[in-house]
Amino acid sequence: MISVAEAEKIILQHAFPVQPEAVALPRALGRILAEDLVADRDFPPFDRVTMDGIAMVHAAFEAGQRVFPIRGVQAAGMPVMALPSPSDCLEVMTGAMLPQGADAVIRYEDLHLENGIAQVNCETVNFRQNIHTQGSDRRSGDLLVAKGRNIGPAEIATAATIGKSQIRVARLPKTAIVSTGDELVEIADTPLPHQIRRSNVFSLQALLLDQYCLDSQVFHFPDDRAALTEGLERIFAEFELVVLSGAVSEGKFDFLPEVLESLGVEKCFHKVSQRPGKPFWFGHLPGRSVVFALPGNPVSTFLCACRYILPYLGQCCGLAARPATYAVLATEITFRPALTFFLPVRTQITADGVLQAHALPWHGSGDLANLNDADGFLELPLDHTVFNAGAVFPYHRYRI
Amino acid sequence: MISVAEAEKIILQHAFPVQPEAVALPRALGRILAEDLVADRDFPPFDRVTMDGIAMVHAAFEAGQRVFPIRGVQAAGMPVMALPSPSDCLEVMTGAMLPQGADAVIRYEDLHLENGIAQVNCETVNFRQNIHTQGSDRRSGDLLVAKGRNIGPAEIATAATIGKSQIRVARLPKTAIVSTGDELVEIADTPLPHQIRRSNVFSLQALLLDQYCLDSQVFHFPDDRAALTEGLERIFAEFELVVLSGAVSEGKFDFLPEVLESLGVEKCFHKVSQRPGKPFWFGHLPGRSVVFALPGNPVSTFLCACRYILPYLGQCCGLAARPATYAVLATEITFRPALTFFLPVRTQITADGVLQAHALPWHGSGDLANLNDADGFLELPLDHTVFNAGAVFPYHRYRI
Repeated sequence: MISVAEAEKIILQHAFPVQPEAVALPRALGRILAEDLVADRDFPPFDRVTMDGIAMVHAAFEAGQRVFPIRGVQAAGMPVMALPSPSDCLEVMTGAMLPQGADAVIRYEDLHLENGIAQVNCETVNFRQNIHTQGSDRRSGDLLVAKGRNIGPAEIATAATIGKSQIRVARLPKTAIVSTGDELVEIADTPLPHQIRRSNVFSLQALLLDQYCLDSQVFHFPDDRAALTEGLERIFAEFELVVLSGAVSEGKFDFLPEVLESLGVEKCFHKVSQRPGKPFWFGHLPGRSVVFALPGNPVSTFLCACRYILPYLGQCCGLAARPATYAVLATEITFRPALTFFLPVRTQITADGVLQAHALPWHGSGDLANLNDADGFLELPLDHTVFNAGAVFPYHRYRI
Repeated sequence: MISVAEAEKIILQHAFPVQPEAVALPRALGRILAEDLVADRDFPPFDRVTMDGIAMVHAAFEAGQRVFPIRGVQAAGMPVMALPSPSDCLEVMTGAMLPQGADAVIRYEDLHLENGIAQVNCETVNFRQNIHTQGSDRRSGDLLVAKGRNIGPAEIATAATIGKSQIRVARLPKTAIVSTGDELVEIADTPLPHQIRRSNVFSLQALLLDQYCLDSQVFHFPDDRAALTEGLERIFAEFELVVLSGAVSEGKFDFLPEVLESLGVEKCFHKVSQRPGKPFWFGHLPGRSVVFALPGNPVSTFLCACRYILPYLGQCCGLAARPATYAVLATEITFRPALTFFLPVRTQITADGVLQAHALPWHGSGDLANLNDADGFLELPLDHTVFNAGAVFPYHRYRI
């Protein structure tokens, strides 16, 4: 049985770098950027007026001039105008180009305008005041966003600004999510006493969609060796990432590992020293597919997907590494087994700015409802039994 | 000029409660739940076997019996079987119903199975060991998820488990996002020196999609009173939430407030004591539309949308209130104007579990690229000038 860290390392070694693909800009939201976003011009692209008022020559004010004839209006979106003389002014609007010859802008609040004349009512005017100088934010050629970023609303706006109506993002692996187990019925069915509805495939599908915009396909196979073998063979012909839920324990009908190996899938490991999710099986069909076979208990499936599949996809897509995150355990926890414990927690940021994690009652890996009240989980190391209130542990968030 | 808190209060007072609508389950991801999710049966729904092994009678072991004839296999998904007699056993698989008459499960690791006989090799067997008792997680009728929750992958799985192939979610307001300004050209265009590409409508659209799955429509009108009036009139006939970007300052072509009032839109406020975003205008067309007219600088538009429109939508959709969040300022900041300052920051959770906020260099409200490096903003109160390192301030996160 290997450790969580060993399992993670092996999994990340099997990441295959996906090729980029171009998508139309508004559809890039939530994808991983596969090209650097670079300034195509200076920001701002010209000396930009930042207040509504008049543009004039600073030295004229310094020399005592307080009354300026208005010789026109320079609005935003108009080609640049010029001051006819250093004693004139132009009315200017926020966002306009600074008129040629002008070197300061006085806002309306400090003016009295009447009959084409601007009377200045303030005591001081600073050289280049209310002017946002060309290139002062970013220079043409500056890196604005490095590839590997998850594209959020701010990156969408940046890409629009530099003219990326098409943008290169990481392609997503073709992904199949497969449930097994004769006890499972469809959502719309009424289960018999010995049956339960399928839910793991939907949580997995939602998790990949939520975190990576990855649209996966779901399948179900009964606990029948022949049907499972035939079904998986078809799936490996088509899908690069195959996530299975259930049938990886020691039971009489848990022949999934055997079936996988019969299809040429090489086992990388089976069993990880963790709770939930100890029977986790991972392997790959060389050059074709990577296989995560997760234990079928709802909490096991969910937390293993968060802990292993999400980082795996990040690695495939070139997602830039993020710093590890930690949270403070709010109350003492005792956990005896020599296993790493993934403890569902609800966090809050206290008025001291501390991320505090409140453990939810652990009913075992079957208690799906527990995950509704949590926003992530702490990773409690296997070499301890008592985890003190106030101690800090790695925290994995799965909810916005 | 009103304060940020006053502006927020007025805005939230104008939230209109939307009606629920039913959507197919997988499409509910990211929506706001508009019905309580209640357990339709006990969880687990039967005494559930949690290990592969044999089910037997605890008292028989206590009486010294160590060899049990295997009378059949109770697999997951099979109707419940019964122990023929208290000295027999059945093989059982994880997820199976506990056979009638059995009250303990011994795992394979503690058994030797040969010729239809199970030999028990462990020292102790506990009453009801390896059995997940019916209803021990949740009872039929228990509330699993209260309405008002943002539906994530865990809630999708819970809804599937209780048979919600259709689920009621908050309908989203019909939303129009409108840019104004003659300086704006399309993303695919090459701007002339005095022009810039449209970007605010795309960041706003992405923000609403990202946070609420709200699919808005975007529009553009030139700085022309007649065109703007006619265009907005058509928009108010169709859209409940109208977000405008630009043309709310004091400039000659900033006649948007007048145009809005000419169309019957009642002004609630104009100008908020904040930076960026001071010229923010808010109003409503009674019984029809709510209007957020945001200043057109990219950072102003973006941060005002985060600070005001996102909570407004949450209120409309019945999103359950979330606790306020705070972060610790990493380095001292000086800000002189008597305005609340929305300071873009990049946060990290330190190894002490503290959410630490690093200020990004403030180039003014035009520096969109700044938002790419930030994940949220601190709200620095208007009654201070120097903000000390180590002090804690409200933190608004806009990035996952």
